[in-house]
Amino acid sequence: MSRPSKAKRGIPPKSDFNSWYPSIVEIADLVDKRYPIKGMDVWKPYGLSAMCLIDSLARSEMRRTNHQEYRFPLLVPEDLLDKENSLVSRLKAAREAGVDPSELRLDEEESGFKKEVYWVTHGGENELEVPMFLRPTSETPMYSMFSLWVRSHADLPLKTFQIVNTFRYETKQTRSFIRVREIHFFEAHTVHADQNGADSQIEEDAEMVRRILRELCLPSIVCKRPVWDTFPGAWYTKAADVVMPNGRTLQVATYHHYRDQWAEAFDLTYEDSEGNTKSCHQTTFGMSERLLGAVVGMHGDDNGLIMPPSVAPFQVIVMPIAAHTDPNVTAAVEELSERLTNRGLRVEIDFRDVRPGVKHFDWEIKGVPLRVELGPRDLSSGKCIVSLRTGGKVEVSLDDAPSKIFELLDSVSDELRLRAEKLVSQLVKPFPLEKIPHDDSFEDKIEDGIVYELPFSGNDSDAEILEKKTGLTLLGESDREFDSDKPCVITGNLTSKRQFVSKMY
Amino acid sequence: MSRPSKAKRGIPPKSDFNSWYPSIVEIADLVDKRYPIKGMDVWKPYGLSAMCLIDSLARSEMRRTNHQEYRFPLLVPEDLLDKENSLVSRLKAAREAGVDPSELRLDEEESGFKKEVYWVTHGGENELEVPMFLRPTSETPMYSMFSLWVRSHADLPLKTFQIVNTFRYETKQTRSFIRVREIHFFEAHTVHADQNGADSQIEEDAEMVRRILRELCLPSIVCKRPVWDTFPGAWYTKAADVVMPNGRTLQVATYHHYRDQWAEAFDLTYEDSEGNTKSCHQTTFGMSERLLGAVVGMHGDDNGLIMPPSVAPFQVIVMPIAAHTDPNVTAAVEELSERLTNRGLRVEIDFRDVRPGVKHFDWEIKGVPLRVELGPRDLSSGKCIVSLRTGGKVEVSLDDAPSKIFELLDSVSDELRLRAEKLVSQLVKPFPLEKIPHDDSFEDKIEDGIVYELPFSGNDSDAEILEKKTGLTLLGESDREFDSDKPCVITGNLTSKRQFVSKMY
Repeated sequence: MSRPSKAKRGIPPKSDFNSWYPSIVEIADLVDKRYPIKGMDVWKPYGLSAMCLIDSLARSEMRRTNHQEYRFPLLVPEDLLDKENSLVSRLKAAREAGVDPSELRLDEEESGFKKEVYWVTHGGENELEVPMFLRPTSETPMYSMFSLWVRSHADLPLKTFQIVNTFRYETKQTRSFIRVREIHFFEAHTVHADQNGADSQIEEDAEMVRRILRELCLPSIVCKRPVWDTFPGAWYTKAADVVMPNGRTLQVATYHHYRDQWAEAFDLTYEDSEGNTKSCHQTTFGMSERLLGAVVGMHGDDNGLIMPPSVAPFQVIVMPIAAHTDPNVTAAVEELSERLTNRGLRVEIDFRDVRPGVKHFDWEIKGVPLRVELGPRDLSSGKCIVSLRTGGKVEVSLDDAPSKIFELLDSVSDELRLRAEKLVSQLVKPFPLEKIPHDDSFEDKIEDGIVYELPFSGNDSDAEILEKKTGLTLLGESDREFDSDKPCVITGNLTSKRQFVSKMY
Repeated sequence: MSRPSKAKRGIPPKSDFNSWYPSIVEIADLVDKRYPIKGMDVWKPYGLSAMCLIDSLARSEMRRTNHQEYRFPLLVPEDLLDKENSLVSRLKAAREAGVDPSELRLDEEESGFKKEVYWVTHGGENELEVPMFLRPTSETPMYSMFSLWVRSHADLPLKTFQIVNTFRYETKQTRSFIRVREIHFFEAHTVHADQNGADSQIEEDAEMVRRILRELCLPSIVCKRPVWDTFPGAWYTKAADVVMPNGRTLQVATYHHYRDQWAEAFDLTYEDSEGNTKSCHQTTFGMSERLLGAVVGMHGDDNGLIMPPSVAPFQVIVMPIAAHTDPNVTAAVEELSERLTNRGLRVEIDFRDVRPGVKHFDWEIKGVPLRVELGPRDLSSGKCIVSLRTGGKVEVSLDDAPSKIFELLDSVSDELRLRAEKLVSQLVKPFPLEKIPHDDSFEDKIEDGIVYELPFSGNDSDAEILEKKTGLTLLGESDREFDSDKPCVITGNLTSKRQFVSKMY
């Protein structure tokens, strides 16, 4: 029986990741990129279903941690920005007074913001009195309302989230899920009585990110971003980056501690139990369709996607074999499918009148974790054959198929985690030099597509030297703890801090 | 025990519907209208949850009828409208040649469309080469892609839907859920090989609307809209209207038969089994957050909302009574809640440390169908008290509480249907005259807030007379069948057709 060749699939080898990725998102029917606005893809049913399952992971974490789901308007009137601008001015003044280095570059961010949004200027044929922009994220619309909602300490903490479309006027090259202009976006915003409350929230966010990335079988690097890469108005920003197979890092989640900086700009105060008016402390936590981009990029292979069972639109495909020769096959396939569905699995029967090879081929591209074949011979032996998308086949007794299939799904997840960890361990290396020399003699030691971990404790201008000399971007300070002090690669001062540099998406 | 008075709730009496409706949507915490753009409300958790449950009803119908969920971009480049404009021109030419009266007023619709959309003219500081508009509905973006997807008869039927935000630059007075500028919108779009296929789709749409409205306990009037109220490019439009308590009708669902008119404009053709190129036939089916508006408006009473159990965010509230006097109460409440949850019910325990009267009051406003009280006395008698939001209390044995609660939820639904049907029967009346006289002598016979059913078979100018003389709008021809012929109220010609006139939202 002839099997469609890889060339026929049109999938480039995954070793050529920069060709493979943009091809597979369309070949596997996740999106259609032919919509006439670049960076605004059409979500096809398979892609949308995977994305909604990722949303379900986020919703379930939000429920577990008592966040409530809201939905705020897409359009923001320009004059609401006055409050944000006042934040920027105040922080600028503070910076000039030498108060806190974390607010550096805020003025640039502010003007950058206006450059990055889409502006609605007309309603019908009328020019709007106040132009509106499409939300790039929702601090401004949300905090305007929060200041109406929060009155007393009894209203705190306020833990909110929404899953919405956001927009960015992107001028760089667009890439499905990774850099798009209409973004499928998750954002949680919380308000607390004091800094402790916000501190705990940041820890809760970190834990949620760990749990979600574990479900997606994605290892990540968690860093505290350098000051100039901190979200405007934030005290600090932490981010989780996934190392993609080409060695570029993809920021998939960020969480920001705002202290009371935004709250002061938005008059977000409350009355404490003693009747004193106090400023709230705030945090935000953001994720997006980049999570799907990371899943696609990390787990797929030369034959197509491999979907982690937690978010696979179909976890199990059941394929009747030679059903025309035995009338019991169809009934058995339906019964098995029903048993699996009743256990909460996402199951699809492929009844198409095409050869089994074609079915395998199609579901392989889509990355369905398990394929079950059931034919007359299997029925008489009381067994069925289960193929794992990660490789291998297992004979499973029909009687305890459901529990065995749960085990096999777990083993697919475990295998994906192992492979991902192995890949990342090859792509993240210690920096090859103890100290970066003044000349460029070391340049041949920097490998393409590698993320470097290095001891670094320099200031901003040291970081600038580091980035310039390596041609890489500073991700920030690793969240992990290190025992040994090592000399900083720029200053030579001993430090326990480790930082990462990479080519970022 | 003092009970908060109605005045304290701030709910106007429902008999003053035009004050009651805008108040209750905020008092029951469905939305916050204080966002600084009129007609763009903030969805609060309770309202969003109810809306998502209505979406679930739509999704479940879509699954049952093999529609697939997509998500298309929000922004549409103006030049995509060229195709739509060519549709308008061709139909205009056809009309001038006297081909089909159904395309009347299309040119007006076209210019009306441009008046009703929001225009994005700038990305950052750059003026866009091609302006884009925010979708008011998605024919143009979807059909541009459909023409890439449909090649042969094997690709048909193509049955798609999406649930998205759409936008309308609304100049009339806005009302939560009923007339808004950012619309939570459902739209299904289908492509068929021939007119028969589209005909069957229209029947399927009608059946879905019936099923969804039954779940929402909403009676409706289904009409074929008059030609001038037909969607641009449609052969005909049918709509379901709900009669609100003030006698105004609210269009909650429409379905359109396009024949091949849109397909020709969008080059949407396929190759049939004999190799001939043919034009596709199309339909669309739309609903929106107006469904929630109808639920709120129809079922609520002087004390707040009454949510139909199918879409109630909480179907059952369990209230511990005197839990401080008996440590078994909390455990019993939790156990009961778990038993109900395991049966698939949406249950919330109200553990708040406030008086039972306050709890009743709060959940009454939110319209939770059933409230269960469980205290020490109930535990010893093995029973609990269930209060129905539609009135009355029932003592239920704890042993078979779950099945009894399912019955009680059904009885709440039945009661809501009965009440709604009774109300509508009072608001829809036969027209009081056999024939509308030339003078205005009959005007005192037209009651305010009444929908009239009347025999009418006149032409467009007769309809204009009818609308002008009654001050009401023609909803169109009733979908029901009538045995007896009666004289048309304008022409006097005998007709079996019945039409409705009303004040429309």
